[in-house]
Amino acid sequence: MKNILIIGCGLLGSSLVRSIHKKKVAKKIFVYEKSKKNISKIKKLRLPCIIVKKINEAVLKSNLIIFCTPMSEYKKIILRINKNLNSKHIITDIGSSKLKSKEVIKKNLKKNIFWTSGHPISGSEVSGPEYGKPDMFENKWCILVKDKSTNLKHLKFLNYFWKKMGSKVVIMNSEKHDKIFSITSHLPHLIAYNLVKSAQDFEKKQKYDLIKYSAGGLRDFSRIAASNEIMWRDIFFDNKKNVSKAIDIFIKNLNAFKRDINSKNNKSILKKLIQTKKVRSKIIKLKQDINKPDFGRD
Amino acid sequence: MKNILIIGCGLLGSSLVRSIHKKKVAKKIFVYEKSKKNISKIKKLRLPCIIVKKINEAVLKSNLIIFCTPMSEYKKIILRINKNLNSKHIITDIGSSKLKSKEVIKKNLKKNIFWTSGHPISGSEVSGPEYGKPDMFENKWCILVKDKSTNLKHLKFLNYFWKKMGSKVVIMNSEKHDKIFSITSHLPHLIAYNLVKSAQDFEKKQKYDLIKYSAGGLRDFSRIAASNEIMWRDIFFDNKKNVSKAIDIFIKNLNAFKRDINSKNNKSILKKLIQTKKVRSKIIKLKQDINKPDFGRD
Repeated sequence: MKNILIIGCGLLGSSLVRSIHKKKVAKKIFVYEKSKKNISKIKKLRLPCIIVKKINEAVLKSNLIIFCTPMSEYKKIILRINKNLNSKHIITDIGSSKLKSKEVIKKNLKKNIFWTSGHPISGSEVSGPEYGKPDMFENKWCILVKDKSTNLKHLKFLNYFWKKMGSKVVIMNSEKHDKIFSITSHLPHLIAYNLVKSAQDFEKKQKYDLIKYSAGGLRDFSRIAASNEIMWRDIFFDNKKNVSKAIDIFIKNLNAFKRDINSKNNKSILKKLIQTKKVRSKIIKLKQDINKPDFGRD
Repeated sequence: MKNILIIGCGLLGSSLVRSIHKKKVAKKIFVYEKSKKNISKIKKLRLPCIIVKKINEAVLKSNLIIFCTPMSEYKKIILRINKNLNSKHIITDIGSSKLKSKEVIKKNLKKNIFWTSGHPISGSEVSGPEYGKPDMFENKWCILVKDKSTNLKHLKFLNYFWKKMGSKVVIMNSEKHDKIFSITSHLPHLIAYNLVKSAQDFEKKQKYDLIKYSAGGLRDFSRIAASNEIMWRDIFFDNKKNVSKAIDIFIKNLNAFKRDINSKNNKSILKKLIQTKKVRSKIIKLKQDINKPDFGRD
């Protein structure tokens, strides 16, 4: 690999810059970033990259192009760089939803150019290059998408690339990806946003100052509900079919739980509470979370 | 204060033992615990307390009695110790729901005996005396309940007591307490249980192994969903009226959100996502959570 172009240098884009630099995977790292605020942060942080003003010049010099912008930006950027793309360019992204962006890419990307989609399962509620870190992808899953039209050579390279970043790579198709993450990621975020909104609604209606008592549970959800709004709007819109289904499953469970409470169905409630408890142990065992009470918070 | 009797020595009971000892608030700390497993743990941990086999002997020797059992145990214990209670006994509890236990207490506690209810906003997903810690209540809220029948002298003492434990004391009535915590604590727990259950349902139906991808959001909820099932069943049953209302508010918001996604209502979604984000900053400012991305997890 010679040169890499990172398009969009926020939390994950800047983590890639740091990680690529640390692992010495590229000769040059170009960064295209449209936000002036982020550009001045990148300069101040002295990130090991070359900030380019003209994206197409960097495209011509790069072998690997990684889209790290919100998914709603893909189309515009594709149309801008199309003329300089060739079939040897390895193009990928880190978007959280796949089926819809596959459509957008198919419709807009120049013929005979390959796009091999990826999704590192990492990030946090904060945004911006100042929060990026070189070990962001270390021991985290990275999903690579393999559909009928996938270029297997590019897929193989990206497998190598993400392993270099420290990730555990899993390959699946877009459909499976979008279903799985509608449940493990999109639904939890959507619920967090709506729980916080419900608390706000209640606070207004009752005129109680209740956010200050959030240590009893609400505060956990507020973290996720603080995630980047553009990124999450794009995910909810792009994966709306699966997300809607996930909401329906969830509401069905909520209503059954409500009935259990109101009828004091001891057996059913206890069974549910005991069953769900097991998932935590499984998550800890799978090293998907820290093995400390209360996430090790004080 | 001379002697204190802690009834039930799990996570919070054992934290009280440690904290009372550290702050030198009592001459003797008696502990009544019905679980043999917990008793052997307490002995092994050499907690600074006297384990009593006969609860009534300890009642006679104690000035302050603190119920730290699940709320469903209150009745049985009250009936057992009634004969040895007198109006000078300061009796309190740490239960998470107030209106229903107030009824139980009123119905079962001997006449002319006072019970002054409390609720420290602390704890975690783990149970048992081995997880208790002396600073469990440090800088945490402790709600003390003041209703018409509250003994003000006892309330004053408990205010002093919890401040000694390091807590910030707030006084409110049972009704307000149960409303506030139905939103900030009971609803979040109920949602966490049901989200994890929805993931389990989905996993079964689709035969996807999805728990391993929980780092995208689900893992956060799994922590809360691992909380003690007896304690939480009691809370849901005892506060079912407020909890049901909270579920209704929440489902209404979920359905509106689903409509926004399906109609791609950009303005409405962005407004919601931006509004809820503000709550996180408020929570951090109020020092109700750690000011580090991702709770400071790695």
